[in-house]
Amino acid sequence: MKAFNDLADFSNEEIQKLLDLANRLDKHPEPDALKGKVLALLFLSPSLRTLASFQAAMTRLGGGSFVISPDMSIHGIETRPGIVMDGAAAEHIREAVPVIASYGDAIGIRAFAERRNLDYDMADTEFNSMTQLVTTPYINMESAIGHPCQNLADWKTLDDYEVPANGGKFVLSWAYHPRALPLAVPASTLYTAARRGMDVTVLRPEGFELPDAIMRKARDAAAANGGSLRESTDRRDAMQGAHVIYAKSWSSTRFYGDKLGDQKLREGFEDWCVDEPWFDNADKNCHFMHCLPVRRGVVVSERVLDGPRSIVIHEARNRMLAQMAVLHQMLGASS
Amino acid sequence: MKAFNDLADFSNEEIQKLLDLANRLDKHPEPDALKGKVLALLFLSPSLRTLASFQAAMTRLGGGSFVISPDMSIHGIETRPGIVMDGAAAEHIREAVPVIASYGDAIGIRAFAERRNLDYDMADTEFNSMTQLVTTPYINMESAIGHPCQNLADWKTLDDYEVPANGGKFVLSWAYHPRALPLAVPASTLYTAARRGMDVTVLRPEGFELPDAIMRKARDAAAANGGSLRESTDRRDAMQGAHVIYAKSWSSTRFYGDKLGDQKLREGFEDWCVDEPWFDNADKNCHFMHCLPVRRGVVVSERVLDGPRSIVIHEARNRMLAQMAVLHQMLGASS
Amino acid sequence: MKAFNDLADFSNEEIQKLLDLANRLDKHPEPDALKGKVLALLFLSPSLRTLASFQAAMTRLGGGSFVISPDMSIHGIETRPGIVMDGAAAEHIREAVPVIASYGDAIGIRAFAERRNLDYDMADTEFNSMTQLVTTPYINMESAIGHPCQNLADWKTLDDYEVPANGGKFVLSWAYHPRALPLAVPASTLYTAARRGMDVTVLRPEGFELPDAIMRKARDAAAANGGSLRESTDRRDAMQGAHVIYAKSWSSTRFYGDKLGDQKLREGFEDWCVDEPWFDNADKNCHFMHCLPVRRGVVVSERVLDGPRSIVIHEARNRMLAQMAVLHQMLGASS
Repeated sequence: MKAFNDLADFSNEEIQKLLDLANRLDKHPEPDALKGKVLALLFLSPSLRTLASFQAAMTRLGGGSFVISPDMSIHGIETRPGIVMDGAAAEHIREAVPVIASYGDAIGIRAFAERRNLDYDMADTEFNSMTQLVTTPYINMESAIGHPCQNLADWKTLDDYEVPANGGKFVLSWAYHPRALPLAVPASTLYTAARRGMDVTVLRPEGFELPDAIMRKARDAAAANGGSLRESTDRRDAMQGAHVIYAKSWSSTRFYGDKLGDQKLREGFEDWCVDEPWFDNADKNCHFMHCLPVRRGVVVSERVLDGPRSIVIHEARNRMLAQMAVLHQMLGASS
Repeated sequence: MKAFNDLADFSNEEIQKLLDLANRLDKHPEPDALKGKVLALLFLSPSLRTLASFQAAMTRLGGGSFVISPDMSIHGIETRPGIVMDGAAAEHIREAVPVIASYGDAIGIRAFAERRNLDYDMADTEFNSMTQLVTTPYINMESAIGHPCQNLADWKTLDDYEVPANGGKFVLSWAYHPRALPLAVPASTLYTAARRGMDVTVLRPEGFELPDAIMRKARDAAAANGGSLRESTDRRDAMQGAHVIYAKSWSSTRFYGDKLGDQKLREGFEDWCVDEPWFDNADKNCHFMHCLPVRRGVVVSERVLDGPRSIVIHEARNRMLAQMAVLHQMLGASS
Repeated sequence: MKAFNDLADFSNEEIQKLLDLANRLDKHPEPDALKGKVLALLFLSPSLRTLASFQAAMTRLGGGSFVISPDMSIHGIETRPGIVMDGAAAEHIREAVPVIASYGDAIGIRAFAERRNLDYDMADTEFNSMTQLVTTPYINMESAIGHPCQNLADWKTLDDYEVPANGGKFVLSWAYHPRALPLAVPASTLYTAARRGMDVTVLRPEGFELPDAIMRKARDAAAANGGSLRESTDRRDAMQGAHVIYAKSWSSTRFYGDKLGDQKLREGFEDWCVDEPWFDNADKNCHFMHCLPVRRGVVVSERVLDGPRSIVIHEARNRMLAQMAVLHQMLGASS
């Protein structure tokens, strides 16, 4: 495996193999599998789960890792191409990325969307400009448009809780948040649920439609795998018989990069906070999922988050197991 | 071992076993003992020794660790219960702690006292609210009221320097410091010295009495182990024949949480800086101990700290060995 | 090996052995060589390559490391000797260094020049004051005047690209930079190239002569190893037939510690940015080297840095391999 960037790059069999491997490594540790192997971790955006779970994953497989992030006492990293570097930054990403990668057997990179230009972010321009600089295998630890480690962990979580693939009802719901958030999680989660063959509903207020390309990719995946995809602005309609609600806030497509416009649009949607009444007509075991971090009382009520519906901690732990499977395939003896 | 939180939770035999194990691991390394095992380290308060020594300890036993602290580029952690999270913090400790713990085989947590309310801190409310969220074994890396890793290291240090248990004279002395400091080290050190069966004197100026509950716990431990406990405001009286002086500043109990009141009370006690004349009537080999960090020229004079009495570096190294013993028992094959 | 501080401390045979070992470890990994061994890493100055490559090196040899730097949530480290610590810093370097070292089997220390007093920095006073506090082996990770890890990596890079030792033409060129930079890299690089027996030219504008002691040390090394050393202010003259140009900015000797004086002197030298025309009369395969980080468009043009002459990424990766050799010798079973 040369790259782990998008579940769409893998066949159903390959995804199943990763899920099986994640389960096997959970039950049967392999502390010698990656002995002496190094994972380079470059964080250009904040992290907690990703930071912790990748380090833990490498240790459990007998290897190790190191972390570089701009909040460390490093020299300041310039990312703009073609610039004369006479300002504060002493190092350019064009050297930093290949150098960091050269110390690892693989590199993980996190770089959130800039959210200035939709086309730029949809093409994952910044992330791709960095991976083009490296010859080692690489892992997308969340880019402008993708979060495949979260996606694989979510797939495993759905399996663990025996949510049906075909016939399973999955609601991806927009939720209120004080700030405009990136598309990476909603876009790649939507694809993942559709790819798993579920009947997927995007629940969101007017104005928070996801970009066409994201909807199209998910719709195609649903069609090819026996699932379906629809949109709704009506909570009761969307939640009817739902097995899972996956909450996530995202920025509006039409005001992409326009903070004030987005802000004005989201005003008045404070009631998009997932709470018990949402589950009235859902499947009685309907689960609550979220990639975390999540704002209590804003995105979801305390009683849902602390109650039996919430499987967010299990979901977060699966990040480590999913990544162990990826690392094992990428760097293991049989890779 | 499910928790390492307070030496009071362990029998004398169990403490001796940990001390023996620490010595054995120092002489006979076991670099495969914790192969593939992960220690999660959560620092909500500053650290140097604890941060370094736990990472070193896990490496020496063949495992690994990861560190999460709010100074990293993470999302900002909210600790207040029941809050609507519409401010700066994007993550709540109620998710962060169980998630971080789920990546480890054990978790170490550091959270200093808030020092607003004495009862709140004496009950170790904040630390306990976090450990209640985890199912993995946990280690107290210094809470409002406890510092058991320091205590075990100190016990080993007293053994290493052949300070008598019964009959050994131990002085815990208040020292001047520009700021009001937590009770964790004085409280748990006092208990440890008493538990070891020594004759313990708390030397401190008027107004800096330790809380009754702390004195009572130590007095009971002394009584049960052939030692004694008394207080003194008189330096010569306290130091008579002393084998060890352990210096530490702490906040006043009566002005707990009242910075100005505490500040006013400590003014004029700048001469509570341990210096050579203090040792005039002590045992001629009387040792100087401190948990570090220590302010030179404020808590202790340079000549004492750099002289032969000081065993603070040896004491600090014992942190690593004591913690290796704890980790070995907690996570090793025979645990 | 008790210290790795200066290539001048090692015989030619010892250096060759380290280079051979670096090559061997690159081809034949030894993931058990330093099992359970710990490297303490103390960064008092910023770092990226050193930070990453030492952690990677220890992992590849089966050991581990931990990092302490003042940007972490530690207690603030005082470095001034003899001070009464009643200010912000709660810890003195005199405790911090031996404590950190005591957790490792070796310690690496980075502390850039203060650049207030030339004699102070030339004597490496600050670095030596710290290493005097430790009993473990230590590694210079860049001090006021030395950067031996970079030097050994550079030597390996010259070998890798088959730059002749005797007869090889090496140009160390001053380059423009908005700020006055330390002497560690130019001084130790100059010595290294001379020690390798090359014909070395220091190319720099008037006013940027290197200190006499640095020139003398390099001249002696050249003489003893069949090389030569000269200075030039003339680009064409210096570059004639050159096999390597090593660019680096440094502060002026005569305005050492005088920011304004140095600033005024370097104004007008913005054209000391290595660019293609510099190579007109060089050997046609003339390589471009730099220790990184490097300012694009300031120290070197984009077309040189991104072109085939540049071997800076290879050079940076050699940091890891050179350090693996040092660590293997310092901490390995046969050491």
